[in-house]
Amino acid sequence: MFSQDMAQKAAENLRLVRDKRPLIHNITNYVVMNYTANALLACGASPVMAHAVEEVEEMVSIAGALVLNIGTLSLPWIEAMLRAGRRANELHVPVILDPVGAGATRLRTDSAKRLIEGLLIDVIRGNASEILSLTEEELRVGTKGVDSVHTVDQVAETAMLLAKELGTTLAITGAVDLITDGERICRVMNGHGMMSYVTGTGCTATVIIGAFLAVCRNPLEAATTGLSYFGLAGERAAARAFGPGSFQIALLDTLYVMKEEELKAGAKIQICGPLQTSS
Amino acid sequence: MFSQDMAQKAAENLRLVRDKRPLIHNITNYVVMNYTANALLACGASPVMAHAVEEVEEMVSIAGALVLNIGTLSLPWIEAMLRAGRRANELHVPVILDPVGAGATRLRTDSAKRLIEGLLIDVIRGNASEILSLTEEELRVGTKGVDSVHTVDQVAETAMLLAKELGTTLAITGAVDLITDGERICRVMNGHGMMSYVTGTGCTATVIIGAFLAVCRNPLEAATTGLSYFGLAGERAAARAFGPGSFQIALLDTLYVMKEEELKAGAKIQICGPLQTSS
Amino acid sequence: MFSQDMAQKAAENLRLVRDKRPLIHNITNYVVMNYTANALLACGASPVMAHAVEEVEEMVSIAGALVLNIGTLSLPWIEAMLRAGRRANELHVPVILDPVGAGATRLRTDSAKRLIEGLLIDVIRGNASEILSLTEEELRVGTKGVDSVHTVDQVAETAMLLAKELGTTLAITGAVDLITDGERICRVMNGHGMMSYVTGTGCTATVIIGAFLAVCRNPLEAATTGLSYFGLAGERAAARAFGPGSFQIALLDTLYVMKEEELKAGAKIQICGPLQTSS
Repeated sequence: MFSQDMAQKAAENLRLVRDKRPLIHNITNYVVMNYTANALLACGASPVMAHAVEEVEEMVSIAGALVLNIGTLSLPWIEAMLRAGRRANELHVPVILDPVGAGATRLRTDSAKRLIEGLLIDVIRGNASEILSLTEEELRVGTKGVDSVHTVDQVAETAMLLAKELGTTLAITGAVDLITDGERICRVMNGHGMMSYVTGTGCTATVIIGAFLAVCRNPLEAATTGLSYFGLAGERAAARAFGPGSFQIALLDTLYVMKEEELKAGAKIQICGPLQTSS
Repeated sequence: MFSQDMAQKAAENLRLVRDKRPLIHNITNYVVMNYTANALLACGASPVMAHAVEEVEEMVSIAGALVLNIGTLSLPWIEAMLRAGRRANELHVPVILDPVGAGATRLRTDSAKRLIEGLLIDVIRGNASEILSLTEEELRVGTKGVDSVHTVDQVAETAMLLAKELGTTLAITGAVDLITDGERICRVMNGHGMMSYVTGTGCTATVIIGAFLAVCRNPLEAATTGLSYFGLAGERAAARAFGPGSFQIALLDTLYVMKEEELKAGAKIQICGPLQTSS
Repeated sequence: MFSQDMAQKAAENLRLVRDKRPLIHNITNYVVMNYTANALLACGASPVMAHAVEEVEEMVSIAGALVLNIGTLSLPWIEAMLRAGRRANELHVPVILDPVGAGATRLRTDSAKRLIEGLLIDVIRGNASEILSLTEEELRVGTKGVDSVHTVDQVAETAMLLAKELGTTLAITGAVDLITDGERICRVMNGHGMMSYVTGTGCTATVIIGAFLAVCRNPLEAATTGLSYFGLAGERAAARAFGPGSFQIALLDTLYVMKEEELKAGAKIQICGPLQTSS
């Protein structure tokens, strides 16, 4: 039922992150900066946050991956994201975009599209509503702030078309995560409902995919295995938590202590052909 | 001694927050963004942080309440607060202001007054020194950064006059919380001294009042019951904590796990007539 | 082996912070603001974060120390740091600089140097790579984002020369901390490896030195005793932690609960003459 091959790759990618300690350059939102930096450290990577237009090109040139996150957007930050992204593209540093709240306001939807049009983006990670907002006008629907009003299954087919159109990999997270590069679809069954009671868990999924991209240049595989690792950590953390406070702390602990063989044993990844997506 | 009626309303308002999951739009300070977002999630609401002038009017139009907090103030943010606030007023979205550090610098005092003059504000939540700084020059006194040098009881009479003059509800937090709309005064005896050892507990009280305002349009009742819920969570969290670190985490847990009947049983709210305030 | 005198002073300084509750004005980075504010509260000080050019001079005038941290740098913030720093110098409010990521980009290295040239700075706290980047061109070396690629021992001699040249005290943190005012060198053996898995522990060391500077005007002593207190708290916290999440929380708890006599007994401070530094 679950792919042993992908579970094996998840363990290998985690090993690589811990061995190589890649520097992850984040241009991200104020709300989650501390937590995503701590999550990157916990999984073995090295985070840096830098947003000044004067330094982002220099900073990204020493990074293993670039994370762009529009969660507390303003225009100068978009400019910095474009500059950093262009330099990343030149240097073949992988880029991952988190279009937080796309669909909720025009500024967010338009900024996300501007980044997608101006840059080569390896992975876009969002919830179903955010990803849907990136499609053509007629498919667009409202969202409620930064929370999704759609399930992953409702958008599977659209996502595959969109991934193909944009030439990127989409990682749509929810109760089940769906990852597609336009050709193949993977599903990740790891995760826990408590994750939706901590702010920035989506953003944290994004930075972990970023760390995995820094060591594994196959975007579909990096996103799928990264999400499986993060989801499994969520399951383990929930078993130790009294509520969302102790859960967020246990989640950092679990990212740090999880052994690669535990990930291999616990990863719940399905690889689906394109035809299965609409069934 | 304690009002059974208000305790019942506290439980009902908490139920409504959890059922309706209102979206709370925050334009707030960098220090507390993560914690207040997590507190809103823990109590059942849905937070969004957005400060760009290009999007605040659109964002607030889908929100159940607007929280304005001047804790790490700069001029463009005040402009965004005014824009969001005016749109909120047009749409009858309730607005709550946290004048963090008013009295400590002219910029903060003046910005708080500018917001109060330019907007209809349902509730202003601050410590005693911050609230005093909003009165006329002759009553003003220095503050020590963002910490209060006055007790709630020292400012009760002034607060009632000020609330009447401004046509708003004042929620003054301290060892005892005092809430007044200029006619009535409520006191909340819930809370714990450990709360003053965690940054942003005042700001967190503010966002919880915001969530209660989104489901209960009586500002005096929303502020009073929200503070009682938050204070009781503080009492419970302190019983499980070793220090301020574990306390802040236990506080999030407790906001999440507290049952409505526990709040009804534990709320310590007094309703006082105006004459009792100067006794 | 360890200085009893310095251990005694560490305990006395901690007592003074708790008694006087000095206000510490921070112009710092977005990533660590919440954590450093909580650390200051936990050790007994009172934090305020304020960065607007319109208010920093007024805010610093009521502060016991000023912390400047370039971790998420942009040009307007440097301007605010210069203004606040000049006012602090006029009023003899001690100033501490954290040159986060200096050496990683030109903007950071140049901004750190601009602050050092424009202001009298009592203590500069950084890792070995950051401190090295402040020396002349020929000594400069690359860094990896915000993490050090050098040990403290590799830079001891350079540090002493640099401290003398700049007329400041350098606090270089690592597995062992080295503090020098250009004449004397102290080493602090307290600390724990887990501290490098939590973002902002360096920045937190900086603010604790700031709190100690507010009550002890000898920079070498304030930095050395502050780092010993922080390092000992790290040791104690690690003993209670499962991973970096629970560690960061236990660290706040430990800063708060540590008794002065525990610090006196646990401080591991060496005072070295200048000749011993190159041995």
